[in-house]
Amino acid sequence: MKEKEFQKVQEIGFGSLIEKLSGYSGKKREEILQGIGDDAAVFEGRKGEISLISSEIFLEGVHFDLSYHPFQHLGYKLVTAAVSDIYAMNAHPLQLLVNIAIPNKYSVQMVEQFYKGVDAACKDYEIEVSGGDTTASHQLLAVSVAVTGSTAKENLVYRKGAKDKDLICVTGDLGSAIAGLRILMREKKFWKESGQETFQPDLDDYEYVVKRQLIPAARNELLKVFEETGLKPESMIDLTQGLVADAKEIAKASGLGLDIYSPAVPISLETRKVADEMKEDVDKYAFYGGEDYEMLFTISEKNAEELRKSFEDFSVIGTMTAEHHEMRINTGEDKTIQLEL
Amino acid sequence: MKEKEFQKVQEIGFGSLIEKLSGYSGKKREEILQGIGDDAAVFEGRKGEISLISSEIFLEGVHFDLSYHPFQHLGYKLVTAAVSDIYAMNAHPLQLLVNIAIPNKYSVQMVEQFYKGVDAACKDYEIEVSGGDTTASHQLLAVSVAVTGSTAKENLVYRKGAKDKDLICVTGDLGSAIAGLRILMREKKFWKESGQETFQPDLDDYEYVVKRQLIPAARNELLKVFEETGLKPESMIDLTQGLVADAKEIAKASGLGLDIYSPAVPISLETRKVADEMKEDVDKYAFYGGEDYEMLFTISEKNAEELRKSFEDFSVIGTMTAEHHEMRINTGEDKTIQLEL
Repeated sequence: MKEKEFQKVQEIGFGSLIEKLSGYSGKKREEILQGIGDDAAVFEGRKGEISLISSEIFLEGVHFDLSYHPFQHLGYKLVTAAVSDIYAMNAHPLQLLVNIAIPNKYSVQMVEQFYKGVDAACKDYEIEVSGGDTTASHQLLAVSVAVTGSTAKENLVYRKGAKDKDLICVTGDLGSAIAGLRILMREKKFWKESGQETFQPDLDDYEYVVKRQLIPAARNELLKVFEETGLKPESMIDLTQGLVADAKEIAKASGLGLDIYSPAVPISLETRKVADEMKEDVDKYAFYGGEDYEMLFTISEKNAEELRKSFEDFSVIGTMTAEHHEMRINTGEDKTIQLEL
Repeated sequence: MKEKEFQKVQEIGFGSLIEKLSGYSGKKREEILQGIGDDAAVFEGRKGEISLISSEIFLEGVHFDLSYHPFQHLGYKLVTAAVSDIYAMNAHPLQLLVNIAIPNKYSVQMVEQFYKGVDAACKDYEIEVSGGDTTASHQLLAVSVAVTGSTAKENLVYRKGAKDKDLICVTGDLGSAIAGLRILMREKKFWKESGQETFQPDLDDYEYVVKRQLIPAARNELLKVFEETGLKPESMIDLTQGLVADAKEIAKASGLGLDIYSPAVPISLETRKVADEMKEDVDKYAFYGGEDYEMLFTISEKNAEELRKSFEDFSVIGTMTAEHHEMRINTGEDKTIQLEL
């Protein structure tokens, strides 16, 4: 193999890699309404029924650190990550398959804790665990899940549906999960420096952000509101990579640009406090943090007003536009940051 | 944590672990026709459509060794493993999600080779790659897949359907995949002992078994034969753990015992040759080898005769029985091995 033929994934980035690989898609089937490129894949059955499927893989040391991620919370979080993709298509999750590869160093009891977390989440989201694969692993714990969902065809919401002048809305507040992670990492550092075998981290003042990191909740109530009101957003994505990356997915899929008004991006007081303590920019948390599992959706102004009557926990943070094809962030201080899509 | 509370998974075995965990199954949903306990989970939609889903996780160093598993073959094999579970329910696979966690040490080109293998397999099995997750990993490559399928409800074949006096049939021949693995491991040992940086293994005489290990094929033609003839087995499972373990699954699920006639178990000449060279018992390969991806099905005597007219590549190796509840292996030398279910 020549030198040039060895290119690290980091050199081209995961985004480019996925683009490169999307050509290797097997046999195209007309029943598949949405393949690669949205939160979940969508399939139409012979009788017109819509099925969705999405999957996730989490690796120890990459996606979680068991020194501060209790097994039970890890199980809960993995399910949240999976069902969130189904909710982001405006559909109901139904069943979950869990694959777990377990190294020798972990006990049956730890695995059981993990499944307790999975079970609790599945009860909260009203889904059934229908199977999976349980296997050995060498050093590190690896878990993956697949989740199915269903909905009526007319209810489906894709990333590509955003319209010119749509309002860009986000539920809840952003940046909390990364703020929680920063605290957990700081406590771990204190623990290591203390040289003690056990350590009682002081997390009382950070309960909200730590919870957002360890046991995030998927926004399933939004689905119910859309059902009850008959309202439907034009496009939707769950916030897992971070606001900037995820909003770009909507813009690219819809062929539009975005204007974001930074002061409107909702950030909790506790998240601000953490950023202050860390001497970091809280906007970085909100724009690049990821793992918040809040929903970003675009909707017409009229429908946003209508929605507000039944559901209040969302903020308008900008508008979709056909006038340019980039992401423009107005910082509210006469400054506009321009980002390529 | 007390000493006693740390129990290694190996102490209780993966079978017991899965049993222990099957209680943590989230919310029971009546749409789920088959949850944990068969090759795939089965779901019935509101319009009566049947969807299936199954998943697999493969880890470097546990399920594959990249020193003799080329990336492209690995991609192919992973898809085979996944679709085989759908075929084992007598259903059509439809779409595949691929999750891959890639360590730094592997290049974009290697990942692309992996996807080429996935693509080739998906074309062979007529399924579409509809998405997945691409992420970083620390040291080891981890891949997982989820596959969906569909069929008419009346075509579904479960593990639990075996009837008293059914013939136990297996397609193709058994033990080839493990024979191939033994050869690859021997060549790897020679290579390490040679101290050379590169090494050209001599595999010419073992082409068949090596291929069965590296790029196994799922028995999709059996599905077509069942469709064309209108015949249907009473129960079915794909042979991935090995004949003994998989046949036990059928017996346990169906509440029956098994009588196996060992000389009838089909073994290829090349597999026999490998066992001879290794000074190992070829029956061990066939009974415990695993990864053959052949089908084991049970069927009435009359239907087996009928099937033989359209499809010849199967052997009758025993019968299901209501007279006892164990696995009895008649070795053909006036000896019967009794195994607990």
